[in-house]
Amino acid sequence: MEKKEQLYEGKAKQVFATDDPNLIIMHYKDDATAYNGIKKAQIKDKGELNNKITTIIYSYLAKNGIPTHYIKTLNEREELCKKVKIFPLEVIVRNYIAGSMSKRLDIPEGTKPSNVIYELCYKNDALGDPLINDHHAVAVGACTYEDLAVIYDLTKKINLLLIDLFKSVGIILVDFKIEFGRTNDGEIVLADEISPDTARLWDEKTHDKLDKDRFRRDLGHVSEAYQEIYARLERLAA
Amino acid sequence: MEKKEQLYEGKAKQVFATDDPNLIIMHYKDDATAYNGIKKAQIKDKGELNNKITTIIYSYLAKNGIPTHYIKTLNEREELCKKVKIFPLEVIVRNYIAGSMSKRLDIPEGTKPSNVIYELCYKNDALGDPLINDHHAVAVGACTYEDLAVIYDLTKKINLLLIDLFKSVGIILVDFKIEFGRTNDGEIVLADEISPDTARLWDEKTHDKLDKDRFRRDLGHVSEAYQEIYARLERLAA
Repeated sequence: MEKKEQLYEGKAKQVFATDDPNLIIMHYKDDATAYNGIKKAQIKDKGELNNKITTIIYSYLAKNGIPTHYIKTLNEREELCKKVKIFPLEVIVRNYIAGSMSKRLDIPEGTKPSNVIYELCYKNDALGDPLINDHHAVAVGACTYEDLAVIYDLTKKINLLLIDLFKSVGIILVDFKIEFGRTNDGEIVLADEISPDTARLWDEKTHDKLDKDRFRRDLGHVSEAYQEIYARLERLAA
Repeated sequence: MEKKEQLYEGKAKQVFATDDPNLIIMHYKDDATAYNGIKKAQIKDKGELNNKITTIIYSYLAKNGIPTHYIKTLNEREELCKKVKIFPLEVIVRNYIAGSMSKRLDIPEGTKPSNVIYELCYKNDALGDPLINDHHAVAVGACTYEDLAVIYDLTKKINLLLIDLFKSVGIILVDFKIEFGRTNDGEIVLADEISPDTARLWDEKTHDKLDKDRFRRDLGHVSEAYQEIYARLERLAA
């Protein structure tokens, strides 16, 4: 597998072509951003830790029947993945209310709603990744209603699997963001990473935040939090 | 029917109790507000015109099988209605893109999307009536998923009926906002008004705006636009 030109550079990752048109290499950086790119920094070892965490989580999801873009981990910072066309949507799942939903609707952070909250944001930096609904997603051409039915079905299953996984290592899965893509042969699969960059993870006893909120809110011990999540998952995977 | 104490005063209407606990009187004012109450004025004859317009529209919808709170028009500014508990939701239907959706997603006003857009806003002045989705609506206790299924089913039918009605008088129904309530015997019914205050109505030939955007955007001839809508509907109803 030969690594070729860079196809895309995002805030936390780069994507490279390979000599196989159906495969890409995803490279994890230490860069962190928040508040639509206004706050920027590097978090020590974040790229390596998120690569390792995503590897464990994607392997677990695949073993449990979730189609994903992940093929194998190549090295400390790189994964080999199926090439997909990413839907320009952030699919957010909230088991507890925190972050933007807490602010928008003035609900105390940590409140458990009677239902699981699913949200879509339109991935568009110029618009600030606005909250949208299913009808907006179709209207802007991000997907069809049929795509959304597949995406929500997978998202529900992923949520149940991730709640279980994190519960088994003493972590409350507060919320998370995932993305989906379509492979060259037309299948809709989970893509991108799942890590403390993209999920709110609270210790079930202390409610300590073990995720990117430590960076967003200047709580300190950011790298240590990512390390803690990896250590717990690694123990389980071992 | 005796008019009793005021139960509620909104931006454009007052609601009064009657001596029947199942009935209220809705009174239309000339007051107009925009931008979450920042812009305020009186529009000459607006209360009378919106009462007359709503009377024609609600009678038409009822004749076509839509359950509503409307019983009869009492005088120039008042309607007798079933008492309902209003869901704290604005249900918005967009056949063409305009207003807040145009701004949020940077889509030119007047664009016709491939699908009809349904939106919910949470009626909460302190929060600025934020855009929400179905899951948020359930989480904040505004309604259940079952209520939403009834509400969307009625909304789709109402949209088709209103498109036809306005088309027959040379008007494009760009978008509109409706509200729903539950009667004392548990039925979900259309409530509130449908008027140039709550719908964007464009002349099909000139695309002249014949609605509250004339007030919001200082286009002049506000009262005349409401008068024009009434005149066209009245001719049809006669």
